Amino acid sequence: MNFRSDNVGTASPEILRAVEAANRDPAASYGDDDYSAAVNDAFSALFEAPVTVFPVATGTAANALSLACCARPWGAIYCHQEAHVHTSEGGATEFYSGGAKLVALPGENYKLPAATLRDALAAAERGIRNRSQPDAVTITQASEYGTVYRREEIAAIGALAREAGIRFHMDGARFANALATLGCSPAEMTWRAGVDILSFGVTKNGGMNADAIVVFDADLVEPLSYRLRRAGQTWSKMRFASAQLLAYVQDDLYLRLARHSNAIAARIGQELAALPGVELAAPVDGNMLFLRLPDPAIQAIAAAGARFGRRRGGVIRLVTRFDMDEAEAATLVDIVRRALP
Amino acid sequence: MNFRSDNVGTASPEILRAVEAANRDPAASYGDDDYSAAVNDAFSALFEAPVTVFPVATGTAANALSLACCARPWGAIYCHQEAHVHTSEGGATEFYSGGAKLVALPGENYKLPAATLRDALAAAERGIRNRSQPDAVTITQASEYGTVYRREEIAAIGALAREAGIRFHMDGARFANALATLGCSPAEMTWRAGVDILSFGVTKNGGMNADAIVVFDADLVEPLSYRLRRAGQTWSKMRFASAQLLAYVQDDLYLRLARHSNAIAARIGQELAALPGVELAAPVDGNMLFLRLPDPAIQAIAAAGARFGRRRGGVIRLVTRFDMDEAEAATLVDIVRRALP
Amino acid sequence: MNFRSDNVGTASPEILRAVEAANRDPAASYGDDDYSAAVNDAFSALFEAPVTVFPVATGTAANALSLACCARPWGAIYCHQEAHVHTSEGGATEFYSGGAKLVALPGENYKLPAATLRDALAAAERGIRNRSQPDAVTITQASEYGTVYRREEIAAIGALAREAGIRFHMDGARFANALATLGCSPAEMTWRAGVDILSFGVTKNGGMNADAIVVFDADLVEPLSYRLRRAGQTWSKMRFASAQLLAYVQDDLYLRLARHSNAIAARIGQELAALPGVELAAPVDGNMLFLRLPDPAIQAIAAAGARFGRRRGGVIRLVTRFDMDEAEAATLVDIVRRALP
Amino acid sequence: MNFRSDNVGTASPEILRAVEAANRDPAASYGDDDYSAAVNDAFSALFEAPVTVFPVATGTAANALSLACCARPWGAIYCHQEAHVHTSEGGATEFYSGGAKLVALPGENYKLPAATLRDALAAAERGIRNRSQPDAVTITQASEYGTVYRREEIAAIGALAREAGIRFHMDGARFANALATLGCSPAEMTWRAGVDILSFGVTKNGGMNADAIVVFDADLVEPLSYRLRRAGQTWSKMRFASAQLLAYVQDDLYLRLARHSNAIAARIGQELAALPGVELAAPVDGNMLFLRLPDPAIQAIAAAGARFGRRRGGVIRLVTRFDMDEAEAATLVDIVRRALP
Repeated sequence: MNFRSDNVGTASPEILRAVEAANRDPAASYGDDDYSAAVNDAFSALFEAPVTVFPVATGTAANALSLACCARPWGAIYCHQEAHVHTSEGGATEFYSGGAKLVALPGENYKLPAATLRDALAAAERGIRNRSQPDAVTITQASEYGTVYRREEIAAIGALAREAGIRFHMDGARFANALATLGCSPAEMTWRAGVDILSFGVTKNGGMNADAIVVFDADLVEPLSYRLRRAGQTWSKMRFASAQLLAYVQDDLYLRLARHSNAIAARIGQELAALPGVELAAPVDGNMLFLRLPDPAIQAIAAAGARFGRRRGGVIRLVTRFDMDEAEAATLVDIVRRALP
Repeated sequence: MNFRSDNVGTASPEILRAVEAANRDPAASYGDDDYSAAVNDAFSALFEAPVTVFPVATGTAANALSLACCARPWGAIYCHQEAHVHTSEGGATEFYSGGAKLVALPGENYKLPAATLRDALAAAERGIRNRSQPDAVTITQASEYGTVYRREEIAAIGALAREAGIRFHMDGARFANALATLGCSPAEMTWRAGVDILSFGVTKNGGMNADAIVVFDADLVEPLSYRLRRAGQTWSKMRFASAQLLAYVQDDLYLRLARHSNAIAARIGQELAALPGVELAAPVDGNMLFLRLPDPAIQAIAAAGARFGRRRGGVIRLVTRFDMDEAEAATLVDIVRRALP
Repeated sequence: MNFRSDNVGTASPEILRAVEAANRDPAASYGDDDYSAAVNDAFSALFEAPVTVFPVATGTAANALSLACCARPWGAIYCHQEAHVHTSEGGATEFYSGGAKLVALPGENYKLPAATLRDALAAAERGIRNRSQPDAVTITQASEYGTVYRREEIAAIGALAREAGIRFHMDGARFANALATLGCSPAEMTWRAGVDILSFGVTKNGGMNADAIVVFDADLVEPLSYRLRRAGQTWSKMRFASAQLLAYVQDDLYLRLARHSNAIAARIGQELAALPGVELAAPVDGNMLFLRLPDPAIQAIAAAGARFGRRRGGVIRLVTRFDMDEAEAATLVDIVRRALP
Repeated sequence: MNFRSDNVGTASPEILRAVEAANRDPAASYGDDDYSAAVNDAFSALFEAPVTVFPVATGTAANALSLACCARPWGAIYCHQEAHVHTSEGGATEFYSGGAKLVALPGENYKLPAATLRDALAAAERGIRNRSQPDAVTITQASEYGTVYRREEIAAIGALAREAGIRFHMDGARFANALATLGCSPAEMTWRAGVDILSFGVTKNGGMNADAIVVFDADLVEPLSYRLRRAGQTWSKMRFASAQLLAYVQDDLYLRLARHSNAIAARIGQELAALPGVELAAPVDGNMLFLRLPDPAIQAIAAAGARFGRRRGGVIRLVTRFDMDEAEAATLVDIVRRALP
């Protein structure tokens, strides 16, 4: 039983087969190949708008390079104080942007409320040369707490960003899980709600070794292309990344994979929350659970060899995956049930 | 016929199979998996010394991040004026190092002579605060001209680096091709000759989408590990890169692949050089050929649909690959032969 | 009446005369002159330890370049959430350090409590590659709220820094005001309490156009010297900055100037606080006052043409200066008194 | 006798008096004062165009921050291979620009020929993501060899820059000396010839501790203002820098000072060049001389206690200053004359 993270998972068979299928004949390098062209077409269809897609090695690269294009070196980037870009990327955004400042804001369930952003923007001293200047806002969908922004929440942030003349980035490391939960279209969750650029997560949901940046704002394409190349993020054999992206969205594979892990998370959440002494620390919107458990239950899970994350205050984090089966979930629930008095 | 670059090639079947084989069961992330541990063991055996290996997405990342660990922001990095790090990586080294300066030096056949480095080091004004301070030297093995540094040439540079107290980096984008040519051991071509850190090329010689940094100087390991993570170069599902590296060196696959492309290059070189009006612009040490051809011959190759690089002065560049067969080479030679008067 | 900031003030006559006196005969450039040598001697005597002094153009340069020497690009620098380096330097520290992260912590009266730092250090995940690594702590003495750290408060932070193996920087933009308040020696307020490097403010207290970095930790001298030069902070005619520094500390001029502005601030604070409806928002430790005033009083001051800062919640900021006289203070108090019911 | 550099000189009395005169009453900080407003007016009149002036501490800051506004991080900046920005600023331009590349080009007498720039621009591979992209050209007027670009030479570079869509920066560390030589107007030597931004040198020609950036291209003003602030180059008591600039250009003081040093240099050049065995290594266009002298003459000068620079091949560098008198020059010539056989 491994609930530690979705990045401990395998690659989905469809993605692996696509990589194999791409391995024939020479192909143009650095993204000039047919697979990479097809990615732009497929994602433009998927998002119902002309988009440009840049495969990258990791989500950190996707986030930091996206934000580096959105913010000037003296810019401020608003984010939730628990945002991955702020807490868990080793200062990648500060580095790639040439020293922009992440302005960390509070918000329930790790979601940045539009009202909080509004206040922060109002307090920003524009034009004052020693103050970081508002340039971008970034949200994580689904959030680091497993919660999902509703469409109107995203749109409210998008509207503020437009009004303020700043760019709107979405860290979609778990984009598919959030989309499966909302049930809306990819366009509705992104550019129609004001998102300019998206870190499109693949790895955590069945990808092998590629994520992507999806660019809605065409002005960002050229600077991003140069930044990626000098960051060493532009593969010469790009087709092996592009093939993964193509397979990932074909026939809605990404949604099917996400629905599976979401469903397992939901089931675990429901069954555990029904037990005495167990409490959900956060709503289970996607494929992550944060649970407050009695100590004996936590010990029992650990004793059973299960991997999971520990947080302060008796809270554990469980992450479900596309390649996890119901039995694994059932076993976990069973262990907890037995450990409770 | 595609002689444009070795990065237009496929991935070797062995490497693809290794990736597939790695795709089972959850595995620890960010390099804490068994495959990644095995890479360090395998490369330590291969190099006859304890080394640390970091898989990365591209050769540009390998070079620029290695050099960023070798040079202070106010440092000077000596290189050949045609070095890939200087001409073809979009300023990646300047970026990752925080503004170090590449000092471009001349040298026949794109190789940096030790004597030239010695003079440059002697001319450096150490301790003068407005001068970039000597910190590193980098050579490309095989060079951008397809030529290969002999062991004593490397060792002479290594000795100078030691004496000067600067670090020695090798850009081994075509490491295997050079090693196959020299016929020495990996250790002899690197740390025994003074190399501190190596960009170990995989992609151009049958890899899929991973290269590696091999660190001989243990002091560089920790800073490099942080730089890689914030560069977005540390895959969460690292095993899919590590599996490629393992397969690549297992049973000397990398040498077999390189010998094949070297042999084809050598054959093309010999046969074409024997033709009237054809001249080798550079020695054919590895898998690249730079040839001066009469115009009609160049036109004939192009007319036949072959892809290749053009340089000034009627020189063309041909690159051979592990997945190219003898027939392809024979056809090319034939076209040239017929095009000559 | 101008209570807006101490940087609206003049240069003290002693400093201007010293600049004039330095203006004879050629002098070696870039700090190799006699005045600059004398600065190191004078400050080493003043601080009772061998120190190296680097004159710089501004306090922002002093802070950001000091911190860039203390933190690796992936480092974390702990500071109060209202620290000038975090809120009012346009991201200078992030820029000069290559992307280090300022970790903003709370604390009463804009002072960082040692206990808060201890908790933050304990929560830092050392060795985890995607977390910013503890490298430095910085405090502002006197703080941005005009409050002064007591010796034991500084020493407690210094002890934590030593224990944690991180560097301790003091932003002494108002060093003299704080020192005058504490009445201890410069050594006691700095290196004896664990401070490794100090931004030594001159401009706000009678300087003309130079501040300084005082380096206690000799390991920081060389890297700082290179960083300063490439930052364009090393004057060729350094003597004109060094002469200012010499005059500033000669015969304790800096303390006399600070005592004057402190005394005026204290008097204003006492007299105003005694009035009904007036409240000190922060203790008046140095030359700054934060006062909560009834609206009519604020309007009366403004109507009288006085310059001052406004904060939220009816709070105003008044800053006193060495070149301000008692009458100016008396007038202000009088205006407020009359405006109150 | 000190011919080492013009930065060993004093400040001109006019400039010192202006600083003193500015030292009364409080003044708005960070350039919002009356002196700074007057600088913009005075320079706009001087340059016959609306310009924005930013005082800075040093020429290195002026150059590197100007170029950082002209070039994207992945940009190429063309310069002469002996340009101060390339050889003598410790990588400041690479640092401030976020890793742009200085492309060093040859040219007689340290001047960049337009034809050489044209070839370099033609060879640049625009749009190729791994090549540094043409963004700027910079020339030094007068050059590091003391030579002066003629108006048509500047205009030819300006025309190429316009055509190529790149920015044109002039490093005017010795602007006044060059202008005095050409005898044209400041406008003719700069923006009328295509210059977009100018490092306006003051320090070497009688300034105390301020140089300036003069911005002709209004688009550069805002980004530059933020870069300067976070670089720690924006003095709070800006009036003391602005007062220097005002005095420097008032009644053409800068030209009078430059004419004096130029005249002394010309006289030394003429008298020495007439001696047997003495040869001018470069034309004496301004206030610097590069002379090839017989060894005994060099030894005689050194023995007399004179300071000067030594170059390879028996060449010495002499720099004259505004505060040097004819007698000093005569003595030097005399020593050389006596030392010759």
